[in-house]
Amino acid sequence: MRAINFNAGPAGLPLPALERARDELIDFQGSGMSILEHSHRGKEYEAVHDEAIALLTRLLGIPDTHRVLFLQGGASLQFAMVPMNFLPAGSSADYLLTGTWSEKALEEAKALGQGTPRVAATTVGPDKRYTRIPRQSELQLDPKATYVHLTSNNTIFGTQWHTWPEVGSVPLVGDMSSDFLWRPTDVSRFALIYAGAQKNLGPSGVTVVIVRKDFLDRGRKDLPKILRYATFAENNSLYNTPPTFAIYLMRNVLAWIEEQGGLVAMERRNTEKAETLYLALDRMSGFYRAPVEKAARSTMNIVFRLPTEELDDRFVAEAKKQRMVGLKGHRSAGGIRVSAYNAVSPQDIRTLVSFMEAFAKANG
Amino acid sequence: MRAINFNAGPAGLPLPALERARDELIDFQGSGMSILEHSHRGKEYEAVHDEAIALLTRLLGIPDTHRVLFLQGGASLQFAMVPMNFLPAGSSADYLLTGTWSEKALEEAKALGQGTPRVAATTVGPDKRYTRIPRQSELQLDPKATYVHLTSNNTIFGTQWHTWPEVGSVPLVGDMSSDFLWRPTDVSRFALIYAGAQKNLGPSGVTVVIVRKDFLDRGRKDLPKILRYATFAENNSLYNTPPTFAIYLMRNVLAWIEEQGGLVAMERRNTEKAETLYLALDRMSGFYRAPVEKAARSTMNIVFRLPTEELDDRFVAEAKKQRMVGLKGHRSAGGIRVSAYNAVSPQDIRTLVSFMEAFAKANG
Repeated sequence: MRAINFNAGPAGLPLPALERARDELIDFQGSGMSILEHSHRGKEYEAVHDEAIALLTRLLGIPDTHRVLFLQGGASLQFAMVPMNFLPAGSSADYLLTGTWSEKALEEAKALGQGTPRVAATTVGPDKRYTRIPRQSELQLDPKATYVHLTSNNTIFGTQWHTWPEVGSVPLVGDMSSDFLWRPTDVSRFALIYAGAQKNLGPSGVTVVIVRKDFLDRGRKDLPKILRYATFAENNSLYNTPPTFAIYLMRNVLAWIEEQGGLVAMERRNTEKAETLYLALDRMSGFYRAPVEKAARSTMNIVFRLPTEELDDRFVAEAKKQRMVGLKGHRSAGGIRVSAYNAVSPQDIRTLVSFMEAFAKANG
Repeated sequence: MRAINFNAGPAGLPLPALERARDELIDFQGSGMSILEHSHRGKEYEAVHDEAIALLTRLLGIPDTHRVLFLQGGASLQFAMVPMNFLPAGSSADYLLTGTWSEKALEEAKALGQGTPRVAATTVGPDKRYTRIPRQSELQLDPKATYVHLTSNNTIFGTQWHTWPEVGSVPLVGDMSSDFLWRPTDVSRFALIYAGAQKNLGPSGVTVVIVRKDFLDRGRKDLPKILRYATFAENNSLYNTPPTFAIYLMRNVLAWIEEQGGLVAMERRNTEKAETLYLALDRMSGFYRAPVEKAARSTMNIVFRLPTEELDDRFVAEAKKQRMVGLKGHRSAGGIRVSAYNAVSPQDIRTLVSFMEAFAKANG
């Protein structure tokens, strides 16, 4: 029996994408070989690689001005690669801090010791927690910055940017690791988007980068080739051996999204899930406390607390007995976290809400 | 029907390792979830992660002085990370050039623009090809170098180090991507070993690093965390999300190696394969020309040429009809290349030799 998977990442995947992988794992399209055993320079793998790019391009309506790249190393490597490429000595970049991951991006830019990363906004509270997204009027943007960096969704604190900030003509860089493809996105607003796959996209081990070509041209050239975005763009992400199976499985997930009706359907599905859960939290606010400002609530990671830590633990343990897993909050934040990525169904959320109602009645 | 896979990488995998992955792809150990969907911080995945490290430690007899790390980005990222960590400004390191991959390692170290990478030996010929490994007397080593870098096996030109060079007290760094685990190796000779998995180890997308702790301590600390080996060592390679499925499948391959009798059995198997093939080449040397100096012949990648390029092409095409794939030489070298990694069986090689005999008779 399939578990109901609320993991924060690696997260649940659509069953049809996994079944497709299983059914052809030993023999890919009658080739007598697994996709895992095909050369990255052979026509079988290249068709998968190119289809993954085509699916992303169709789903997001990526304009001709941008290129799709596949890298390794997760968002964590992007935290270093972005400033390495686009923050040369003597320049500065603006960072918008909305949680742990944007703090990490800032720290890695500082550790590089090239240009100067600046904090252009932060919503950190006195308790080091973040419960909201900054308003436009709070952004202290430098029009000479080489880029503005934001984290679109904050897995740990459960906040999300619902409208993109106005940054004038400064290139906008977005870490969308935890909400990429949750709904249609205007890619043209961004000079560079990056997303580790292990939430809405597929398995861990591949990172999608979408970069505007004219921004790419501004990247430093005096770097090792493997750390330059241009190297990946010039070689269709085949400069070195890509993580072929991770890209293959991402292709399966992207095909599933398209079959479901694309990103419009994902938005409907995810909005329904988030509304169902937040309505329940608000209805039972005497028992469940949702700390995030309503306007900043994440559709992907819904966080809340019970009256005591002991009840938090009992909630997680009893949910697990009903095959609902991954509900424990991040170790740095505590409480409960429901990660409701694309593969989680509205029915999964309704099952959780029924459990929450019964749990509140029994323990409230 | 299973193909006979002579791909240079990603390469063929042991069928039992693939079947195990297929059988539990949807439901890992009754958890109701795929291993792809498990959190990297959950006990199910951590057991796999730790077992992969334990298997490597047992198979190679890795001493307590060394640590096993799992990274992403392939050998190509290691070309940059090694000098980034261990070649600070004002220092120099010695590079032993034996082929394209060691040239690339050198180029990336140069591109970093920190310390000075020096060529301490090269066996490049006037035609830019390499057909041998340097002798000890040819090495112009600098006793003050921060490390000596070598590529243990050269996939493109088909040469291999069969005895390690004497480098005194200078730390030895080895790129073993294409012959790691082909036989027992004295890990204590090396300060750092790195190996992309997609040859003898598993799928593309994970890189194994084995590093001596005291060498690790010499690494630069003023780097982004994600680019420091120390970060991976301090966090059991769980600082950020690892490529969980690639590590899982590598675990399956390592378990298969152990079941076969470990690295002593791999050495016997690989030696038998290489001897069978080189004996055939020498016996038919009027038709097949093997360019590599005998003492430097690779057991992993056996390269040769036919009398004409047209015959090379026909050889590849006719072999493919008999389900033998991956025989075309690297695009920079031409000719034929037989990659005979651990998963290739002695019977596969005998089938190839029979084909070679018939082909020579028909076309000679």
